Amino acid sequence: MTTPRFAKLPPTPYYSVTFSSQRTPGENGYDQMADRMVELATTQPGYLGVESARGSDGFGITVSYWASLEAIAHWRAHAEHQIAQESGQALWYEHYELRIARVERAYGKRT
Amino acid sequence: MTTPRFAKLPPTPYYSVTFSSQRTPGENGYDQMADRMVELATTQPGYLGVESARGSDGFGITVSYWASLEAIAHWRAHAEHQIAQESGQALWYEHYELRIARVERAYGKRT
Repeated sequence: MTTPRFAKLPPTPYYSVTFSSQRTPGENGYDQMADRMVELATTQPGYLGVESARGSDGFGITVSYWASLEAIAHWRAHAEHQIAQESGQALWYEHYELRIARVERAYGKRT
Repeated sequence: MTTPRFAKLPPTPYYSVTFSSQRTPGENGYDQMADRMVELATTQPGYLGVESARGSDGFGITVSYWASLEAIAHWRAHAEHQIAQESGQALWYEHYELRIARVERAYGKRT
């Protein structure tokens, strides 16, 4: 079964932003912001897709995919996204790591 | 709090293998294999670290980090890992996507 949790991406190369994070305790408006950011990201130039998983311990990984480094820079500078980034620093994340990469090869098992 | 869930990585560039997967229902020896593969990966040449998250819906993302494409190819060809890959295809994963990338930039919030 192919689920919508998997991003449908074009042939390589493209770019990825891997965001690993440990949530703080408490909700503090996080879910609404996270939904809004995914919704907003999908409307940005060069957006290709997103995949996300978070365990019950609050550790999560979200990978978004982009056509170019310029598209990533543009999304990073988006005003509403910047507000979310500031709240993320202050409220929602105990620790995070962000890694920007160029995807060179991709394959999978799709049923 | 810095948790051991985050990989401690050297300065960029390095390489990542992002494995997104949807588990099949049932355990079928998966947890033991997953633990063993992480243990084995850490002993491989060029291994830098791993981060992993899986939600209660069975969708997960594991990112392993490597010094070079050669290190990734070597790990992929490891005999015991190949057996796990075959069982993964047959038993454990409904769907997976594997993406190999060169990490260009990294930063984070570390408390």
